[in-house]
Amino acid sequence: MTSIAFIGMGAMGAPMAGNLLKAGFPVTVHNRTREREEPLAALGAARAASPAEAASQAVIVFTCVSDVPDVEEVICGPRGVLQGIQPGRLVVDMSTIGPKAARSIATCCREAGARFVDAPVSGGPLGAQQATLSIMAGGEAADLEEALPALRAMGKTIVHCGPVGTGQATKLVNQIVGACTFCAVAEGLTFSRAAGLDGAKTIEAVGGGAAGSWMMTNLAPRMLAHDFEGGFKVSLQAKDLRLVLAEADEMGLPLPITRLVIQLLTWLEDNGHGQHGTQSIIAAYEAIRGKEPQSKIGLEPGGAGGEAV
Amino acid sequence: MTSIAFIGMGAMGAPMAGNLLKAGFPVTVHNRTREREEPLAALGAARAASPAEAASQAVIVFTCVSDVPDVEEVICGPRGVLQGIQPGRLVVDMSTIGPKAARSIATCCREAGARFVDAPVSGGPLGAQQATLSIMAGGEAADLEEALPALRAMGKTIVHCGPVGTGQATKLVNQIVGACTFCAVAEGLTFSRAAGLDGAKTIEAVGGGAAGSWMMTNLAPRMLAHDFEGGFKVSLQAKDLRLVLAEADEMGLPLPITRLVIQLLTWLEDNGHGQHGTQSIIAAYEAIRGKEPQSKIGLEPGGAGGEAV
Repeated sequence: MTSIAFIGMGAMGAPMAGNLLKAGFPVTVHNRTREREEPLAALGAARAASPAEAASQAVIVFTCVSDVPDVEEVICGPRGVLQGIQPGRLVVDMSTIGPKAARSIATCCREAGARFVDAPVSGGPLGAQQATLSIMAGGEAADLEEALPALRAMGKTIVHCGPVGTGQATKLVNQIVGACTFCAVAEGLTFSRAAGLDGAKTIEAVGGGAAGSWMMTNLAPRMLAHDFEGGFKVSLQAKDLRLVLAEADEMGLPLPITRLVIQLLTWLEDNGHGQHGTQSIIAAYEAIRGKEPQSKIGLEPGGAGGEAV
Repeated sequence: MTSIAFIGMGAMGAPMAGNLLKAGFPVTVHNRTREREEPLAALGAARAASPAEAASQAVIVFTCVSDVPDVEEVICGPRGVLQGIQPGRLVVDMSTIGPKAARSIATCCREAGARFVDAPVSGGPLGAQQATLSIMAGGEAADLEEALPALRAMGKTIVHCGPVGTGQATKLVNQIVGACTFCAVAEGLTFSRAAGLDGAKTIEAVGGGAAGSWMMTNLAPRMLAHDFEGGFKVSLQAKDLRLVLAEADEMGLPLPITRLVIQLLTWLEDNGHGQHGTQSIIAAYEAIRGKEPQSKIGLEPGGAGGEAV
């Protein structure tokens, strides 16, 4: 089977590489913090000392890291993928970096004689573990075709969105809609609590109808319980929406709700919730209500108002 | 079977009364515009010249009209339900009027020797026709119990939210979350269009994951197609959110996204979309983008940018 390199053993990359191994692909892994390669090595992966070394024997190179500078470094940097890759091979980046960075890295790849597909994912660590990710791909149809067997080992819904960058743009749409939707849920629960309603009954009555959503089903109970561990991290959601704003400002798009949501996420980051899941947005709502002592919420994330929302 | 009066033969009340008839309940109907009683009479309903007359032979009286003054008139007015109802009988109002009006009408009923349950619904005309409504009920448990066989003929999910007014408060939560969610969808589609993405592919990639919602599945394709007929009317959604704001202001709740959504809905009302479905929110997004000629959108609702979103 196609020999694969996988760069980035984070909360997403590690289980994704694990699923490639389970599907029978020979995989060479690399991570900046080398210890993180060990669980994959235990599953049968080879290890490489640099992205360049990992790429040297691979037919397809996958990268999945945190932000634009990380992707630039692991692909275009002095020890990056393009320093080791064989001519004509395919690089598939699964990080969320926005369309502009994707197009720039695609140019970088083309100049080095490699091909590039952007294929950011949605579904979180759980989707990565269960191989149920949504994968939004941008690039040449033939390149995506080549990557498809490997992508199918990692995700369930794989959509070819268009040329390079459109996978990233589609992922940004996903982040806009998702973030505005979990705020919709938090705003409703804030009203529910203030009106003295039973939160669980509110979710039961509202969640199954036209106001229902994945966020309502999955995050509303955790908002009620002030269960802020796990889930998609506030700091990453904020990063993604800042990528959105950079694009929106260039395109002249107001995106009024998204801009408001960024303010709430920034408050969360400034008040100790950056590493919490996005369900902690309810803490920002409790704070802006101004009826909860702000210090309590600021100093003890997850402790404030834990009895009910 | 329990003899029922049903006041209000609108887009919701008529099919709801029809389902009571289908379930075998004897039903007497009344509507201010009397012709609207005719289709129900054809299904076997008796007709009454006033709410008072309809209520006079009924064990349970249902009301389903548009707004607070309408409910006050049909229940407490000079020809209203309470002028005809027998002592100790039950009035169930299924309109959306907010918790304060519900409590005030409950007092009015109690003083007239009748009992009151607020039971607003979610699910729209289609849910009313298919008897799949969500019904959010507030009142005494024994009163709800008495109404339950009839409610089961009209809805699927029936939640007892608490004392009188809590059904209304829960419905307002539903309206907050629903409206903010369809704006989340519209905001994402606006970005998608500006980024030059294929809208149908965006919906495919985004709708099945963590950003998915009833609104994404049901309204996003209609937003793309500029199909603004049918669905829940902008004017009613705006009315419901104004009920939300009246409560929120008293409770000191900012509800920042809801306030923003009301501005968008007000723009829609001012620009000929009041009788369109809430999917026409996409027209407000196109207008605030400022790259579409406003006059085109204002004068020809549904005609602007019809090629794609």
